[in-house]
Amino acid sequence: MKRILTTEAGAHLGQRVRLTGWLHTVRRMGGVNFIVLRDGWGMIQAVTETEADLAPLRVGGLGPETVIALEGLVVAAAQAPGGLELHEPRLEVITPVVEAPPVQLNKREIKAGLATLLDHAVVANRQPRRRAIFRLAAGVMSGFRVTLNERGFTEIQTPKIVASATEGGANVFQLDYFGRPAFLAQSPQFYKQIMVGVFERVFEVGPVFRAEPHDTTRHTNEYVSLDVEFGFIEDHFTVMAMVREVMAGIFSTLAEGYTTELELLKASLPTVPAEIPHIHFSEAQDLILQRHGVDVKGEPDLSPQDERWLGEWAQVEFNNDFLFVTGYPMVKRPFYTHPDPERPDYSNSFDLLFRGIELITGGQRLHRYEAYLAAAQLPVEPFETYLEAFRYGMPPHGGFAIGLERLLMQLLGLPNLRLTTLFPRDLSRLAP
Amino acid sequence: MKRILTTEAGAHLGQRVRLTGWLHTVRRMGGVNFIVLRDGWGMIQAVTETEADLAPLRVGGLGPETVIALEGLVVAAAQAPGGLELHEPRLEVITPVVEAPPVQLNKREIKAGLATLLDHAVVANRQPRRRAIFRLAAGVMSGFRVTLNERGFTEIQTPKIVASATEGGANVFQLDYFGRPAFLAQSPQFYKQIMVGVFERVFEVGPVFRAEPHDTTRHTNEYVSLDVEFGFIEDHFTVMAMVREVMAGIFSTLAEGYTTELELLKASLPTVPAEIPHIHFSEAQDLILQRHGVDVKGEPDLSPQDERWLGEWAQVEFNNDFLFVTGYPMVKRPFYTHPDPERPDYSNSFDLLFRGIELITGGQRLHRYEAYLAAAQLPVEPFETYLEAFRYGMPPHGGFAIGLERLLMQLLGLPNLRLTTLFPRDLSRLAP
Repeated sequence: MKRILTTEAGAHLGQRVRLTGWLHTVRRMGGVNFIVLRDGWGMIQAVTETEADLAPLRVGGLGPETVIALEGLVVAAAQAPGGLELHEPRLEVITPVVEAPPVQLNKREIKAGLATLLDHAVVANRQPRRRAIFRLAAGVMSGFRVTLNERGFTEIQTPKIVASATEGGANVFQLDYFGRPAFLAQSPQFYKQIMVGVFERVFEVGPVFRAEPHDTTRHTNEYVSLDVEFGFIEDHFTVMAMVREVMAGIFSTLAEGYTTELELLKASLPTVPAEIPHIHFSEAQDLILQRHGVDVKGEPDLSPQDERWLGEWAQVEFNNDFLFVTGYPMVKRPFYTHPDPERPDYSNSFDLLFRGIELITGGQRLHRYEAYLAAAQLPVEPFETYLEAFRYGMPPHGGFAIGLERLLMQLLGLPNLRLTTLFPRDLSRLAP
Repeated sequence: MKRILTTEAGAHLGQRVRLTGWLHTVRRMGGVNFIVLRDGWGMIQAVTETEADLAPLRVGGLGPETVIALEGLVVAAAQAPGGLELHEPRLEVITPVVEAPPVQLNKREIKAGLATLLDHAVVANRQPRRRAIFRLAAGVMSGFRVTLNERGFTEIQTPKIVASATEGGANVFQLDYFGRPAFLAQSPQFYKQIMVGVFERVFEVGPVFRAEPHDTTRHTNEYVSLDVEFGFIEDHFTVMAMVREVMAGIFSTLAEGYTTELELLKASLPTVPAEIPHIHFSEAQDLILQRHGVDVKGEPDLSPQDERWLGEWAQVEFNNDFLFVTGYPMVKRPFYTHPDPERPDYSNSFDLLFRGIELITGGQRLHRYEAYLAAAQLPVEPFETYLEAFRYGMPPHGGFAIGLERLLMQLLGLPNLRLTTLFPRDLSRLAP
């Protein structure tokens, strides 16, 4: 018999079908046995009062996660999860499992500390709620790509082994490249800018590497960056308009295709307004002084507390989860940032706050060769080959980057970025 | 005036429009000036007999790659490329370029050696035929994802910094991970297998890193791997059937959305037959002896010459660009390969030859924990955390990997893999 998926069972009411998957759990209630099979998409239960139906498991003392095939008659059953169950089951063992898994996968939540969960991520990620997080990750990537493809963007894949640190600073991993030092790309920044010269509108989904030597709940050392860059912009407001489109596209993709996962995780999607409100960095500091009596003027950046306050203000003022803060001081932005022509200490850059936490950073970039040469922090030597793009004609351009895991963490209200990373990398964790 | 794209000009016949892009070339023919603008999607020419229309360029001595805006009246002109041209042009300089680019972008082919072309890839990739290659790369990725999403596969992103070499051997890059040694993933092999336990059907598009210390035309040290893995297979023939679906999906995506690029590159797409012919490794060796009088029996692998001969045979026998070779000897396959149960010296693996060159490798994998422990080459220690997946129930599964650049190279008949890589990494090349 051809195997069907759990999600297809509803189309086979009254028929005998074959499913395959993992033995999620066996429950016994008043002489009735419930066998729950989990496949890659969902779960289905089989019901039997006949002990002999469980014999294939009993013989070897097999337990949860045993890989099985389950044949049975599909019957409507209002009280069953999904409204269906299998009667007269015939169970067959494909791969036996005797030992209990290191974390319990058949409870609503995994009852284990973060370290145990991550140590055993290889198995723990099978748990339905864990799995739903990573299926949403696929949804985010898909919504991101669809939105950008519809707008004429071309997908690129740029090198991760590079000759020099992209973003500057010390947080770069060094490797041995045939006896020479090389580095892991901290971002595809230069490459995506260069590719504006080729395709005008580009995006990339790929790993980035940050050797930050501290443990926080909001950082890991390798994450997935959703990068966008495009040319012929007016200024950073053109980029912010694109950010809005992309966020709306991502959430509408999730709303359309990922309801099961969102329900399982009790997550509600934010509404992206037609125009996301924005506030200039210096006005944001004024506002904090007014509303909270704390004088942060002169600070070159916003603190997490400042961001929370601004998030609250956006909720009260605009009934909105999103707020752009624009015009961050040049001193805290990377050297390729375009200054505000009117107030050159401030930049044509922005952060998007989502529920009071920074989610996206972006802005307009320098596009003239001379401007790069003049950008103080820049030693020309290692950047020479990149600068060729600017030497031979670049339009005004800009872009932004979204951290995939950060987006999921904030969307799902999770306390640690590691919970949205399949196999996180941090100071103490290099495996699995 | 709102800017339109070159591809949109046809919809504006008889209207005055504004385009932006790069000055591709200026030609003068018998007192008539042709200004060709290139944007991210195509080209359009403006025609004028009025010298003054070129004044904005003449003033600064500006040349090709100057970023410009060009306004003009859209007129049908059978003799013009694309059947359109702009009359009464008004040209505006956005970013001036005086210096001639290091490679000439406005000829049909770049007249420069491979090294020069790669040294200046940052600019050279703007050349229309070069650019078409990388737009096709986006098409291949898109076709790959669409085909797999339609079949219930979930996209994953797995870590690239890993605790141990995945594929074994010495060709692994080592890096300094906070004072400890770590490695760059040679493939997502273990992770994609592990994720079969979570989603059953997974795919990944991402970079892989191979520290092979030799220069060949068919290898680079970082490339983009299109990886697939899925569970509940019968054997490697289930995997081969999926390879066929994916190849057909990729080529139909290119046929639908990438005709401009294919025409520019004079590339013809292969027909993927309903069933791709297959031949067992040992029969392939017999065939080579019969047809060519060369005895390669006893050899554990096929040579490039063998592959070419088999490709020719598939052309003659099946009128077909594709041929599966199955059952490679276990001795030449990685330790996770599933043996042929009937002939355990041979494996349940395959290569797909495309036009006589190996394009895809895949097969059935071991799925029982004990089988991994028994696999001779495997030191349990560094692999312990991965093996948990097999300890707690894995179904029969398999998968394959396609090298993005390799596929493009063979499709386009290019002599060197570097020509299909945006910014190649090899023994001597770490930038741009």
